Amino acid sequence: MALLLNVTDPDRISAFEAMFRDFPIRLVRSDESYDPDDIRYVFTWQPLEDWSAFFDLEIVFSVSAGVDQFVDLPDHITLIKMVDPNNTQRVVDYVLAACLAITRGFPVYSEQQRHKLWEPQPIASFAQTHVAILGLGEIGTRTASALKSLGFRVSGWSRRERDLEGITCVSGEDGVLSLLGSADIVVCLLPLTSETRGLMSASFFAQMKHGAGLVHAGRGAQCVFDDLGAALKSGQVGAAVLDVFDTEPLPEASAVWDFPNCLITPHVAGRTDAETAARNVAENLTRHLEGKDLLWQVDRKKGY
Amino acid sequence: MALLLNVTDPDRISAFEAMFRDFPIRLVRSDESYDPDDIRYVFTWQPLEDWSAFFDLEIVFSVSAGVDQFVDLPDHITLIKMVDPNNTQRVVDYVLAACLAITRGFPVYSEQQRHKLWEPQPIASFAQTHVAILGLGEIGTRTASALKSLGFRVSGWSRRERDLEGITCVSGEDGVLSLLGSADIVVCLLPLTSETRGLMSASFFAQMKHGAGLVHAGRGAQCVFDDLGAALKSGQVGAAVLDVFDTEPLPEASAVWDFPNCLITPHVAGRTDAETAARNVAENLTRHLEGKDLLWQVDRKKGY
Repeated sequence: MALLLNVTDPDRISAFEAMFRDFPIRLVRSDESYDPDDIRYVFTWQPLEDWSAFFDLEIVFSVSAGVDQFVDLPDHITLIKMVDPNNTQRVVDYVLAACLAITRGFPVYSEQQRHKLWEPQPIASFAQTHVAILGLGEIGTRTASALKSLGFRVSGWSRRERDLEGITCVSGEDGVLSLLGSADIVVCLLPLTSETRGLMSASFFAQMKHGAGLVHAGRGAQCVFDDLGAALKSGQVGAAVLDVFDTEPLPEASAVWDFPNCLITPHVAGRTDAETAARNVAENLTRHLEGKDLLWQVDRKKGY
Repeated sequence: MALLLNVTDPDRISAFEAMFRDFPIRLVRSDESYDPDDIRYVFTWQPLEDWSAFFDLEIVFSVSAGVDQFVDLPDHITLIKMVDPNNTQRVVDYVLAACLAITRGFPVYSEQQRHKLWEPQPIASFAQTHVAILGLGEIGTRTASALKSLGFRVSGWSRRERDLEGITCVSGEDGVLSLLGSADIVVCLLPLTSETRGLMSASFFAQMKHGAGLVHAGRGAQCVFDDLGAALKSGQVGAAVLDVFDTEPLPEASAVWDFPNCLITPHVAGRTDAETAARNVAENLTRHLEGKDLLWQVDRKKGY
C-alpha cells in the first residue's frame, strides 16, 4: 500500500518525505522501481500514461486546483483537488498585478519600447476602470474583492448565481455576454469544462469593448489563440497578459510570442506550496484510513 | 496685467479660458502676439527662454509638482508649485502597478518573451517583499500607505525626519544607504535638488540587494543611466520600471531603450488635471489680488 509521488520538483519530494516519515503509508518516487499493484494513491500534476496499469488505485491527488487534465480518469477512482490558501493568494496577486499593468498601459508601452516609440497615452484611474471577472470560485471572489478595495469597478460571471457585496454578479450563458460590452479588462479564471473550452474566440473578442484588455489565468484551451492574435493586431483587444497557453511550455515557433501589446508569463500565476501539498495529502489519507469522508473531492460530472 | 499661458495642450488652454472668462486678469496664449511688459504672471511647464524680458513678472505657476526646472528663475519672482490630488493618486497608482509588476517578474518575463524563453522564476508574495520609498512627500507617503495595505513591507527615506504608522522611516544622508541593502524594490520619488542629482549611480546600485528592482518616478537627472544599464546587464539590479529620463522624449538613439529587464514608460506616472490647474491658478490669483498669502509657494532655498 503506497503513495506514488509522480513529481520531480525537489522541494515537493522533500516536503512529502518529511511529512510521511512516520506515516502508515509508504512513499514511492516515480524514478524508483516499484510494483504498480502496490500503488493505492497517486500525487500527480499530469495524468498517468495508462491508468489501467494501476489495478488497485483508489485516490488521485492533484498537485493543482485545476483538475481538467484528469478527464479520462476512470470513474471509480476518487479525484482530490488541491486547496492551498497561499496559492489562492498568489493567483489573486498575479491578477492584481496584471490588471494594474493593463490599466497603466504597461503592455502597450512595452510594445512601444521595442519600436523605440515615445507616445504617452491617456491615463485611466482605477475608479474609471471596469474589470469583469469570469469565474467566481475562491480565487475569483477574492480577486474581485481585492480589486474593489483598490477602487476598481468590478463585476463577475459564474455558472451558478452568486451574491457578492459591491460586485455586480451575473450568471448563465447570456450573463457573460452582458459584461463584455462594458468591461475595460476581462479576467478569465474559469475552470476548463466542455462549456468553457474555446469560449474566448473571435465572436467573444468582437463583443468586448474596443481596446479593452484581457487577463488570462484560466486554462489555455479556453482561448482560441489565433483569434486573440487577430484581435490584438486589429486593436479590438488593446492589451493582454497571458499566463496559460494551449501548449506549455509555449513552443519557440509559436506565433503567440509575437502578439502585439501582450505580456506572456510562463504559467506562474500560482504554484502550490510544497509543504501545504504534503500536509493536505497526509490529512486526507489519515481521514481515509479512519474511514471518514475525504476533503476537496472533485465532482466528476461538473469537472471541478 | 496678464497671465501668459505658456502651454500648448488644447485641454489646458480651454480649461483656463473657461475659468478666466470673467476674471479681472487677462489671459494671453503663447502663440498670440503680446507685449512682455503686460505679463505679470506665467503658467508654464518649462522655464521661459529669457526671464529678464519680462520686466514686471511677479509669479510663475508651475504646471507640475516638481519645480527643479526653475532653478534659474530670478529670486524676486514667486514660484508656485502645482498641487493636484488627482495627479497624486495617478502617481501612487503608477508606483503600485510598477511594484506589483516587479514583484511578479513582469519586466523579466517581458525580456524572456523577446527571446522566446519559458523560464518560470520563484514567486514572491507581497508580504515577503520589502519596498523602500525614497522621498516621503505627499506622493511618497500615500504610496507607502497603499503598498502597506496590500501587504508589502514598506520603509521610507526623507530629508527631514518623518513618523508614519507601520512604516520604518529613516532620514539623513546615511539613512538612504541603510535601506538599500535590504530592499527588494527601491522606489525613487525624490524632488531634484543638488543633493539628489546623480544620486542613483554605480555606488548606489552596488549597495542595493543583489537582483532588487528599481522604480524611478522622480526626475531623470537623479539617475546615472549608464551606471543603471551596467547594473541591469550584470543582474545587480534585477528589474526596473522607468518613467523619467535625462532627456525626454527619450531619443531613438538612446541605449536606455535596450536595457534588459527594464520597462520604459514615457513620463506618464502623473499628469495634472487641466481643470484643477486652472482652478488652482485662479484661486491663488484671487488671493493675490485680495492681498492674502499665496498657497503652494516653493521655498526657493530648498528647491521644493
